[in-house]
Amino acid sequence: MRDVSIIGVGQTPVGEHWNRSLRELGVEAVHAALADASLDRPQALFVGNMLSGELCGQENLATLVADFAGFPGIEALKIEAACASGGAVVRAAHMAVASGAHDFVVALGLEKMTDLAIDGVTAGLATAADADYEAAHGVTFTALNALLMRLYMERYGYKREDFAPFVITAHENAVNNSWAMFRDPITAEDFAHSAMVAEPISILDSSPICDGAAAVVLCPTEQARAFTDQPVRILGSATATDTIGLGPRRDPLRFEAVYASAHRAYQQAGIRPEDIDFAELHDAFTIVSALSLESICFAARGQGVRFAQEGNITLQGKLPLATQGGLKARGHPVGASGTYQIVEVVDQLRGRAGANQVPNCSLGLAQSVGGMASVAVTHILGN
Amino acid sequence: MRDVSIIGVGQTPVGEHWNRSLRELGVEAVHAALADASLDRPQALFVGNMLSGELCGQENLATLVADFAGFPGIEALKIEAACASGGAVVRAAHMAVASGAHDFVVALGLEKMTDLAIDGVTAGLATAADADYEAAHGVTFTALNALLMRLYMERYGYKREDFAPFVITAHENAVNNSWAMFRDPITAEDFAHSAMVAEPISILDSSPICDGAAAVVLCPTEQARAFTDQPVRILGSATATDTIGLGPRRDPLRFEAVYASAHRAYQQAGIRPEDIDFAELHDAFTIVSALSLESICFAARGQGVRFAQEGNITLQGKLPLATQGGLKARGHPVGASGTYQIVEVVDQLRGRAGANQVPNCSLGLAQSVGGMASVAVTHILGN
Repeated sequence: MRDVSIIGVGQTPVGEHWNRSLRELGVEAVHAALADASLDRPQALFVGNMLSGELCGQENLATLVADFAGFPGIEALKIEAACASGGAVVRAAHMAVASGAHDFVVALGLEKMTDLAIDGVTAGLATAADADYEAAHGVTFTALNALLMRLYMERYGYKREDFAPFVITAHENAVNNSWAMFRDPITAEDFAHSAMVAEPISILDSSPICDGAAAVVLCPTEQARAFTDQPVRILGSATATDTIGLGPRRDPLRFEAVYASAHRAYQQAGIRPEDIDFAELHDAFTIVSALSLESICFAARGQGVRFAQEGNITLQGKLPLATQGGLKARGHPVGASGTYQIVEVVDQLRGRAGANQVPNCSLGLAQSVGGMASVAVTHILGN
Repeated sequence: MRDVSIIGVGQTPVGEHWNRSLRELGVEAVHAALADASLDRPQALFVGNMLSGELCGQENLATLVADFAGFPGIEALKIEAACASGGAVVRAAHMAVASGAHDFVVALGLEKMTDLAIDGVTAGLATAADADYEAAHGVTFTALNALLMRLYMERYGYKREDFAPFVITAHENAVNNSWAMFRDPITAEDFAHSAMVAEPISILDSSPICDGAAAVVLCPTEQARAFTDQPVRILGSATATDTIGLGPRRDPLRFEAVYASAHRAYQQAGIRPEDIDFAELHDAFTIVSALSLESICFAARGQGVRFAQEGNITLQGKLPLATQGGLKARGHPVGASGTYQIVEVVDQLRGRAGANQVPNCSLGLAQSVGGMASVAVTHILGN
């Protein structure tokens, strides 16, 4: 297997892009990443996306973006793994370069969610659940996560206010990220009084519906320094799945897919969890942050929230999280989020994270989760 | 790059499976392929599918199938490339095994189209066109192909009856294929009098809307003989794209993506077109067969129809096509068709094609095309 590095990254602002089309967002991120890599033309373009068919009436999405980016002819495929699509596309691109099939591949995460009415988007997101046995009953993802959060609170004795540190940290970090959707800091009091969506999940526990695109350029490590002084190596890249529904799980508070994908990536990288300097986790809801922290082995079972309360997840903490705002405050254009995470980890490792720079970091983890943690993709990047 | 072989194949009958679900069809094909490969459990499952979100309300499809096939935990990703998804998934699985990321990968092509009313399916298929600049005007894929067919007839002086040999051959071959949807032979007279859909395309120029699943198991060639006496090597595997819309093309009758993907595959395999013993082409409409024959260099420009008229595409001909009925008569469950083609090529190369066996064949080509030939995936398989 060839060693693979990232040589360029690009992104669009995350937000409600009423005046910009799906293709425009994708092309902008692709061109930005190629410019950053000083590369004219890739050999392949893989697009991570969940809902372009349902929300924009557009499949054949990778062909569309390849065409409008100016590269008709190249290989182009779309990769879908629900909300983990943005991580999965980097995983697929990694295999393409590692195999020798291509030397230069762009992995693009792309989603446009605001072109449809909100109930259409909620129904679209529900396609990540089991259509016949879960979604058919009308359950939404917020409701499913609310069940988990309530169980967690009851089992481990937390109040909903205890989850505030995840959100406060994310918004605090987003203040300095010009690509982020929500750049206002929030307080514990804001969180305590935020409007309820599906009890105990409030609007401030939840990541927003929005649009965005992020891209990375991959190439063999041995060629990387011809394009940039700051290549970032992909040390681990792994996907794992769990049952698609919550029902059959032995313990719904144990994220088996998150655990398995993280541990496969740790093993590939030859590192232990404590070697990681910072992480971008899938903070679509605060409960997912807490359970993910436990599944990647940074906190014992039931201690994820406490880990955050003890100040460990801030930029000065033991494991900084959501260093550019995370899904919560940078925003969560579902199929793009996982690629945004990779872009942010690369920026940190290159020392380009501005006011949010994690000092002396050399190993970062990005983890993208889909469905009710039924699929997870973990990448470990390093200098 | 590791050399990769196919060690098992499986499929479901193609048809209108009113009493069977998306997941059931997928699981059946996966289990059949694994049984054929004498393999208990794959390390990854890739699913080629175009429309599960739009037609079945189900994304996160690869996770769903992995779960219900009994393999939660493994890597699972969905691959979309419009109607070429079934070829694209084998391409992605090939890169995964070639890279060394996995030794045993199942590539599943899966589509269930009959759960929705026909106008919903037609709208779903139109998502393979440019949503903003083509589909927005109400054009369907049948209409787009009708434009091509009319142009072809006018430029090269054919009548619509001249296209009959493609359909007669496909139906003749499907008679002996117990997995095929339409097993009745048809005559030139049937074709001449078939009902018009979008002039000059009649119902008998067109492949049907249907359900089905087909799967193949890939592993490194050096391990293949531990599982089967009849592994089939993947000698070429390539995807190429064209502009997504017909509008910008210099010549709409030249399928650039088909040409490019075929020639990349020829080059990888180190062969010339004339070395191919038989081919499964994307005969979604008769005009696509004719233009594909020209693009893979078996007929000169404008000679694709004549090539068929001269008897070259029957089982006894120079280049047998649609040896098990093709998209036209075996059926075209869109995201699955490309994988069915691979299964059929493997069966031929293993001498398991029954009454439709191509004698002494050692090199077969399978080509899956998406959109208005805006994306094409070509595989060349050999003993």
